[in-house]
Amino acid sequence: MSAEPHSVGYSAGESFSPDGIGYRIPTEADAESSFRDIAESAEAHRRRGGGQIVVVQGLGFVGSAVAAAVASGSDEAGRPLHYVIGVDLATPASYWKVAKINDGEPPFRSPDAKLPPLFREAVQERENLRATTCEAAYALADVIIVDVHLDVEDRVVQGAEEIRVGLASFEAAMHTVGRNMRADALVLVETTVPMGTCERVVLPILREERLRRGIEEPVLLAHAYERVMPGPGYVDSILAYRRTFAGVDKASADRAREFLSTVIDVEGHPLWELGDTVSSELGKLLENSYRAANIAFMHEWTLLAEKIGINLFEVVDSIRVRSGTHDNMRYPGFGVGGYCLTKDSLLAQWSAANLFGVDTELGMTLAGLRTNYDMPLHTLELAEEVSGGNFDGKTVAVCGVSYLAEVADTRNSPTETLVDGLLEKGARVRVHDPHVVTWIERPEIDVLQNLHEALEGADGVVFAVPHDAYVNFAVEDLVALLDGDGFVVDAQNVLTDTKAQLLHDAGRRVIGVGKGHWRAARYDVAK
Amino acid sequence: MSAEPHSVGYSAGESFSPDGIGYRIPTEADAESSFRDIAESAEAHRRRGGGQIVVVQGLGFVGSAVAAAVASGSDEAGRPLHYVIGVDLATPASYWKVAKINDGEPPFRSPDAKLPPLFREAVQERENLRATTCEAAYALADVIIVDVHLDVEDRVVQGAEEIRVGLASFEAAMHTVGRNMRADALVLVETTVPMGTCERVVLPILREERLRRGIEEPVLLAHAYERVMPGPGYVDSILAYRRTFAGVDKASADRAREFLSTVIDVEGHPLWELGDTVSSELGKLLENSYRAANIAFMHEWTLLAEKIGINLFEVVDSIRVRSGTHDNMRYPGFGVGGYCLTKDSLLAQWSAANLFGVDTELGMTLAGLRTNYDMPLHTLELAEEVSGGNFDGKTVAVCGVSYLAEVADTRNSPTETLVDGLLEKGARVRVHDPHVVTWIERPEIDVLQNLHEALEGADGVVFAVPHDAYVNFAVEDLVALLDGDGFVVDAQNVLTDTKAQLLHDAGRRVIGVGKGHWRAARYDVAK
Repeated sequence: MSAEPHSVGYSAGESFSPDGIGYRIPTEADAESSFRDIAESAEAHRRRGGGQIVVVQGLGFVGSAVAAAVASGSDEAGRPLHYVIGVDLATPASYWKVAKINDGEPPFRSPDAKLPPLFREAVQERENLRATTCEAAYALADVIIVDVHLDVEDRVVQGAEEIRVGLASFEAAMHTVGRNMRADALVLVETTVPMGTCERVVLPILREERLRRGIEEPVLLAHAYERVMPGPGYVDSILAYRRTFAGVDKASADRAREFLSTVIDVEGHPLWELGDTVSSELGKLLENSYRAANIAFMHEWTLLAEKIGINLFEVVDSIRVRSGTHDNMRYPGFGVGGYCLTKDSLLAQWSAANLFGVDTELGMTLAGLRTNYDMPLHTLELAEEVSGGNFDGKTVAVCGVSYLAEVADTRNSPTETLVDGLLEKGARVRVHDPHVVTWIERPEIDVLQNLHEALEGADGVVFAVPHDAYVNFAVEDLVALLDGDGFVVDAQNVLTDTKAQLLHDAGRRVIGVGKGHWRAARYDVAK
Repeated sequence: MSAEPHSVGYSAGESFSPDGIGYRIPTEADAESSFRDIAESAEAHRRRGGGQIVVVQGLGFVGSAVAAAVASGSDEAGRPLHYVIGVDLATPASYWKVAKINDGEPPFRSPDAKLPPLFREAVQERENLRATTCEAAYALADVIIVDVHLDVEDRVVQGAEEIRVGLASFEAAMHTVGRNMRADALVLVETTVPMGTCERVVLPILREERLRRGIEEPVLLAHAYERVMPGPGYVDSILAYRRTFAGVDKASADRAREFLSTVIDVEGHPLWELGDTVSSELGKLLENSYRAANIAFMHEWTLLAEKIGINLFEVVDSIRVRSGTHDNMRYPGFGVGGYCLTKDSLLAQWSAANLFGVDTELGMTLAGLRTNYDMPLHTLELAEEVSGGNFDGKTVAVCGVSYLAEVADTRNSPTETLVDGLLEKGARVRVHDPHVVTWIERPEIDVLQNLHEALEGADGVVFAVPHDAYVNFAVEDLVALLDGDGFVVDAQNVLTDTKAQLLHDAGRRVIGVGKGHWRAARYDVAK
């Protein structure tokens, strides 16, 4: 496998990882040849007895980590319990993940220090994790974990009827599984799917493909949604966290329980079985919709707090002491990004109409999603206000591209909305993030890693992510680097009142999301 | 003071309590005469040194309990710390509370066993709690706690511009305080008020009244909102619970902190001081709005769950294991009642426009309030569905009038909406509640206390409140009492699946809020 560094971009026959390394996509013959090794190792593992052969379909942010996590389990003698094969497509968009894993590296950057050794040990030392593009892998599996991509076409919709779910590639993946799987293999769907998908999409496809092969036994099919969290607890969020699951029948549920119990620390984190897969699928969607709605709820109170001159962070802190009822109240913020909170409600609404044919509207839920999408535009308004309403020829440093502090994940980052708005209004934009080397979604925009360079001589700065590098940045340096009457927009509670006061005293204009007290006459700060 | 039992109703010169006892309202001369005793006792208490004279203005659900709670404190020698005088109006609507307290009884029924002894001991043994209608009481006070009524005119509004707050009686109460208070007394507002009320309503009134009396010293004014919960923890929710407060200036905040520390168990439940009273006032409104919005959010998922055939209770349980982020998720339900959650968002929206003159819309918050108001109509729909769509001549037992399990509080009970709907559709309605003797808001409707009597021969029953008496009721008795093809609507998760199955097997039709699985083909229950 070649691994020469290249600049980002696709070319025929090559697949580029986000860190700019290009991998030559193998021909079918090459792939099959290298797969023979994998198949031999897997069969040897099976002959030794004990664990199972587990195939993970889809090596994205979740699937790759799940593959390494499943491979990390050992039997009582300390030998690898399961043999894990990750499968993804031989395409420019996907193949690099296969290559990375076979090099013993995690495909995705993460602040979790546990992740790199998990891959290195499984691939290079324990030798029970491999990746391939060969469909033949599914035929080896005792358990097939489905972690393939399933997304909406557009996250910004005005109404339920505009939601489009790209189910075709997911269905194609299920056909592949059905064409290859053993009769008694368990298919465990972990992908976040519209509720009803297991019963109404996966099950018919698997039955059809199996019948074509003469397999009449009932399909063993279960759903167990992950709660993977990017950040320092990435691995533990798979192995040491509560997991909900359900089977399409009792035999499926039993097999799922048995398998999950070999992977997850179920002593500390008992499994939760639901009565049907629709409930389990809905659980994930509801869980994330709840979080998204709570964020949206706080936004309208943020706008109010700014107008009546109070510090909403302080108020939320005082309310969060009510544990069990109010301690999850969200703070004022910049927006919502990531893969899940920005789309899962849409999957639920789509499923109601398209998988169940029922007429129901998740009105408050969808309205919240739109609020969250528009939220960064409020920060843009604050920037306009504090900059005097004119960005022409002004240089604005936007600090933070990832959608969460201390992670490198830029999927659906609200920073994109802000940057687009600033550019549209004529600003020159410098983008900075200590964790993001390449902004995958906007490769034409350079991301600076040096904060001094980003700030020096800028007319203004927007703190869009509360990375430690910003929270800990010396305010004296900020004063020195910013232009004489420069402005600071704090969209993420990055500055203390003391720092805001210092900036104000030094002639810099300061404004903040949820920081009404910075302009209220009853406070000294920046009034 | 007379205490002959009467039937409920008002007559000139008499004030009736909810338990049907009439009290003759004293003349001004009588009131003044009995107040002389109180004033003498209070002064004697002051001469003895130590505690303070505390006047509580407004003896409603909160004020009366606060008065008794403040009176319960002792000094190191075990003697009563504060001398407490409760003040309310000499009107038919209010006077009975004054009379009850002077009889050593709590004015309101509560499941908290601590409450009656608190009143009895303070009034009859410790002799440091009295109630009066005389304004002169305010002149004795070191601390005046304001717990007067402040409400919106109508809780059901279509838009922000329709909100009307009845501020007149609150303002009149503040004038009374200003006309009588000592220059150095602390006014501590506990009433839930539109944010800005202390700074923009109370302070100008007190200043004006004091200036008229030649008092030029700054007013000592603070806000400390209560989190009183009806139910078995009523007293502890005052004395042993986190309390947020703020003063209009440092001197006021210091006095408030000092006083609250003598009342609340601040070792276990530290006070939380906010920077200004606007923040403290908003905190209460936001806290309750958050709860109301979370309830509204769940309602649209309830409708969805019923249509796609799943048990949403089970799903919510599985999600609530995520402590700190999801453990306050609400369950499907019948509706929202009570004094606070049904109006506090309206106070916030009203204040923005009327006290601050800012243009902002709490759109999601107000939409949630409307959802909650309409919620019982969904239970009505379920009843219609399961009864065959025709209530003419049918008898429906509605079980539960209070707005919460195991309490007697009927304020804004959603049961009222359901009962009105049933009556409008031609049903004969029997109302039952084990805790509610008189439905104050609907005195023309008798409330039965005997459940057998309510159910016997009824064509259907709606469980609207999850009182223990319903949860523990034998399903065999329910089958026996209900009409042969009678129906059961479970709006509050009163029935287990097993009981629903038994009812179904016995020919009774069963339906439930959030219980989609009771009609889904994949379940056995009541399909």
